[in-house]
Amino acid sequence: MVHNGIEYAMMQLIAETYDILRRAGGLDNNRIREIFDKWNEGQLQSYLIQITAEVFKTLDKESNTFLVDLVLDKAGSKGTGKWTSQSAMDLAVPIPVIDTAVAMRNLSIYKEDRTKAASIYKPRSEKINVDEAFLTDLENALAFSFIIAYAQGLNQLAKASIELKMDIPLPSVIRVWKAGCIIRSALLGNFSAAYNRDQFLSNLLLDSDIALLIKEREQSARNLTAAAMRAGIPVAALASTVTYFDAYCSERLPTNLIQAQRDYFGAHTYQRIDREGVFHTEWHESE
Amino acid sequence: MVHNGIEYAMMQLIAETYDILRRAGGLDNNRIREIFDKWNEGQLQSYLIQITAEVFKTLDKESNTFLVDLVLDKAGSKGTGKWTSQSAMDLAVPIPVIDTAVAMRNLSIYKEDRTKAASIYKPRSEKINVDEAFLTDLENALAFSFIIAYAQGLNQLAKASIELKMDIPLPSVIRVWKAGCIIRSALLGNFSAAYNRDQFLSNLLLDSDIALLIKEREQSARNLTAAAMRAGIPVAALASTVTYFDAYCSERLPTNLIQAQRDYFGAHTYQRIDREGVFHTEWHESE
Repeated sequence: MVHNGIEYAMMQLIAETYDILRRAGGLDNNRIREIFDKWNEGQLQSYLIQITAEVFKTLDKESNTFLVDLVLDKAGSKGTGKWTSQSAMDLAVPIPVIDTAVAMRNLSIYKEDRTKAASIYKPRSEKINVDEAFLTDLENALAFSFIIAYAQGLNQLAKASIELKMDIPLPSVIRVWKAGCIIRSALLGNFSAAYNRDQFLSNLLLDSDIALLIKEREQSARNLTAAAMRAGIPVAALASTVTYFDAYCSERLPTNLIQAQRDYFGAHTYQRIDREGVFHTEWHESE
Repeated sequence: MVHNGIEYAMMQLIAETYDILRRAGGLDNNRIREIFDKWNEGQLQSYLIQITAEVFKTLDKESNTFLVDLVLDKAGSKGTGKWTSQSAMDLAVPIPVIDTAVAMRNLSIYKEDRTKAASIYKPRSEKINVDEAFLTDLENALAFSFIIAYAQGLNQLAKASIELKMDIPLPSVIRVWKAGCIIRSALLGNFSAAYNRDQFLSNLLLDSDIALLIKEREQSARNLTAAAMRAGIPVAALASTVTYFDAYCSERLPTNLIQAQRDYFGAHTYQRIDREGVFHTEWHESE
């Protein structure tokens, strides 16, 4: 199930990359195929990138035009992505990039609403100049977001292993995924090494070698996502990996305010940073 | 339940605003209180903004310092946000800002991981100059994202009303919310007017007057989110409202690629834009 959740995330991330190249970059299918073919020879080498390139080679036999352009943009699903998200919420594990992929598939179904909204809001996608520097940023941003997607899914397995006493051997999970499944990729080699260093690693992002991979790609992911958001291209999954990373690296989150609000309106109590215990305050009376 | 889902989203959005003002802006609690007090007299007038200002007035009696600074940044929850997200996934309604608020509460719990990650990645939050122009952008971005949060929750109620034959009278829902609940706000007046024009409105964003409110604030939301992402402030919920809006206004999403991929590796079939029916292609053989 979690394999499929990660698969949903990777497919959504690839689709957003395609959208940037096509809508903001104005690239044609041949050029997009070349880019995915080239990416499949480098850090992004993976089954999903490989088949994406092949999709852009396929012609509709009758019209002799690219088949991908004739496919309706409403996603189907068998439910495995949804189950992954629902289960993660029960386990209290944050997997926002998978949640986002599920939400975006659901949003795609409302084609009639989207058509109405497009006529009301008349979105003008700003153009982006897709030069070599931009393509390098895009490739690095996609690699960054793939790592985060795997990290979130594996974090869910690590938590499930403890909470549900499932005793999941994460090094074996990676071995199985490498052996020939839809999310197989060169990156799994790096993850094997990380789990060989610590088989109980709670989150891949805490491994020092994975941290190097992330640090080298962080700025690209940040630049790319900001540029796409300014251009009006919906990069929900890409953006969610950057914001997850920023939250994950925040020793201090603004959640103290949420706890204060909850205690204010519902007396839900709060903990303190300076002493043990559970506290309640009559906030509005203590001015 | 959906009321509480929207509440989760609004609280997360306010918390992100606070984080921008505090971490990137370097503002102190007195100044932050002034800003929320002022916001509560304008377009953002609402119970949650009002109590946020009051939280920033409250002192810890013993230390005579601001109590909010002593509250631990781990969120609790009673599960209503989670149920809202899980139910929306079952109904195939996209409510990503609520999903994100749930995920961010869950992420906040992993304080130990976050502390480790902060020491590994040493995030440097870039400073933002909080001048009047920036504050106007921030206020508009927050209003934009509040509207999207309500729109997603109400979209879920509209869908549930049909799918589950619940016959939910949306104008009455708004009336009840206005009468004195945690998500009451001046914006609900605009929503009443929208439902008076069309009580079966599937999504608030399709109402012409709501569209004006959104259009006037869209650029602020876009600028603000991009700036925060560049500065390394985790604006997961704010970003999710911009990407949802961009996807919702896309007559053509890149989901055609996802459908092609699904048909490639799983023979899940696809629909076409040029004719009725369900199709399957042997993609890799048709080169």
